[in-house]
Amino acid sequence: MENNTLVAFRRDIKILDATIRDGGIVNNFSFTDDFVRKLYLTNVKAGVDYMEFGYKADPDMFNENEYGKWKFSKDEDIRAIVGENNTDLKISVMADAGRTNFKRDILPRSESPIDMIRVATYIYQLPLAIEMIEDAHAKGYETCVNIMAISKVQEDDLMKGLELLGKTNVDVIYLVDSFGVLFPEQALRLTQMYKEIADKYGKKIGIHAHNNQQLAFANTIESMRAGASYLDGTVSGMGRGAGNCHMESLLSMLRNPKYRIYPVMDFIAAEMPKIKESGATWGFDIPYMLTGSLNIHPSRAIKFIKDGRNDYSEFLKELLEDN
Amino acid sequence: MENNTLVAFRRDIKILDATIRDGGIVNNFSFTDDFVRKLYLTNVKAGVDYMEFGYKADPDMFNENEYGKWKFSKDEDIRAIVGENNTDLKISVMADAGRTNFKRDILPRSESPIDMIRVATYIYQLPLAIEMIEDAHAKGYETCVNIMAISKVQEDDLMKGLELLGKTNVDVIYLVDSFGVLFPEQALRLTQMYKEIADKYGKKIGIHAHNNQQLAFANTIESMRAGASYLDGTVSGMGRGAGNCHMESLLSMLRNPKYRIYPVMDFIAAEMPKIKESGATWGFDIPYMLTGSLNIHPSRAIKFIKDGRNDYSEFLKELLEDN
Repeated sequence: MENNTLVAFRRDIKILDATIRDGGIVNNFSFTDDFVRKLYLTNVKAGVDYMEFGYKADPDMFNENEYGKWKFSKDEDIRAIVGENNTDLKISVMADAGRTNFKRDILPRSESPIDMIRVATYIYQLPLAIEMIEDAHAKGYETCVNIMAISKVQEDDLMKGLELLGKTNVDVIYLVDSFGVLFPEQALRLTQMYKEIADKYGKKIGIHAHNNQQLAFANTIESMRAGASYLDGTVSGMGRGAGNCHMESLLSMLRNPKYRIYPVMDFIAAEMPKIKESGATWGFDIPYMLTGSLNIHPSRAIKFIKDGRNDYSEFLKELLEDN
Repeated sequence: MENNTLVAFRRDIKILDATIRDGGIVNNFSFTDDFVRKLYLTNVKAGVDYMEFGYKADPDMFNENEYGKWKFSKDEDIRAIVGENNTDLKISVMADAGRTNFKRDILPRSESPIDMIRVATYIYQLPLAIEMIEDAHAKGYETCVNIMAISKVQEDDLMKGLELLGKTNVDVIYLVDSFGVLFPEQALRLTQMYKEIADKYGKKIGIHAHNNQQLAFANTIESMRAGASYLDGTVSGMGRGAGNCHMESLLSMLRNPKYRIYPVMDFIAAEMPKIKESGATWGFDIPYMLTGSLNIHPSRAIKFIKDGRNDYSEFLKELLEDN
């Protein structure tokens, strides 16, 4: 049986661990410092390229007493974990368009432990997102842009948005399947579309998938085959709702000697049972499958599960009623 | 966002529910009659095309006291569930080459509630499998052949085997990913290979996927896109080790008005918690991912989990030592 030789020789691949950021949505960013430090050391050993510490939310908009610290990812909190981060692992944070006081809270890179700013934006916020990208770029950061909820955007608008981004200083444009609606062939086709514009402007493509239909890993593979080189994963797939592409799956697939799966498996065995015992729940389940297949935000599925319901048929009827 | 229009218009699709047969491997075929009857009624309501009741194992080879009745799937036991089965749902059983007294235990179709015999075979058993196919065909049954463990077969041998099968009276040739090793592009490419021979001889293609790498659904989709029309699923993905393609995912994807997802979701809500409480375990987990990605039979992963181990790194080292 032929292996995916394409995978074996893709030296451009970068893996980003989004456990604290996307997983933080599950447990309100309440990870212990011990957990975050061990994950950091795990990522260093595993050869993971980027670790995302959390959001850079504006403390004037969100009450700091209501969230764990990784909602805000202050430089001093990151430094308490990584020191001067004298490793090959780069540090990223996510800055939401409209929820970040980026001019004030994102310091020049020379003063910060952060290496990459990932701007998350809806398509209608692109002018603001571009301002944030240019601000971060001017401060010396690598930059990413994650256009969210594209499954609700007309392709023509999306193309125009991508063209706009092509003309900025952004380094990486992410294909984001926020609702977990995509089938593998669609992930492949959309990536080809992104790649065309990326190639024209010298940008790279990334993929951030959700597991609503149990397709996050498959979509990541197909997107990679179409040219995405930045691949997001999370440990045990921890992330909002159905979660993300499993980091351990990514590392198992990529036969790249740069990556080592052993540290991640050891971390999972030692740390993830505690996280699950703490009541954090995520992962494939019928309610997420239903919102995913209907191209609906997972929030209602999260509530359905939190409420302890399992009347899936009623839930589907509710979803269809006001979709 | 474009939907998979290919899916929407594929009127040749047939869904086979393999819950009792592949799920039976998980719980030693110890389903209650009540469970099996409710699943049967669910499948009828859902528009599922085939329901597989179990294996047709030879009682002279396997002690009937050591297994539930669906290891043997006697006609009278099937009849106790389905009566004369005056529905559109067809009944299948699996006959393992070398483990079935097919001449004695498979009655003429006119005397049996069974509609289709699925012969499971390793490539080296093909002469016997062909004898079983022709016997079942002559007795009036629809016939399938599932060549197992093809990920360990040289492509040239596989092609020759498929050619042999093309010349028989078999109706459907199944692509079976026994170890859950395939990536979506491989499932697609292998299906194209099967399809070429199937078209030449007027056969249909089926896909039976395992979820070791969380790719069972994705591989089923890709195989379908390449021309497979018989799709195996199981309720909640219940099946050996990491389990199978989830029936609910199949029904959610196929926008074919023939199929209804509501009965299956109601069945899952009412019946599957009891199955899980009975101690049956299956579903994606790291040990299955490791055997899958290494193209190894899942038996060692099943033992690892049964033994309550979670030292994944040690397990991987053990697997690599004698692979």
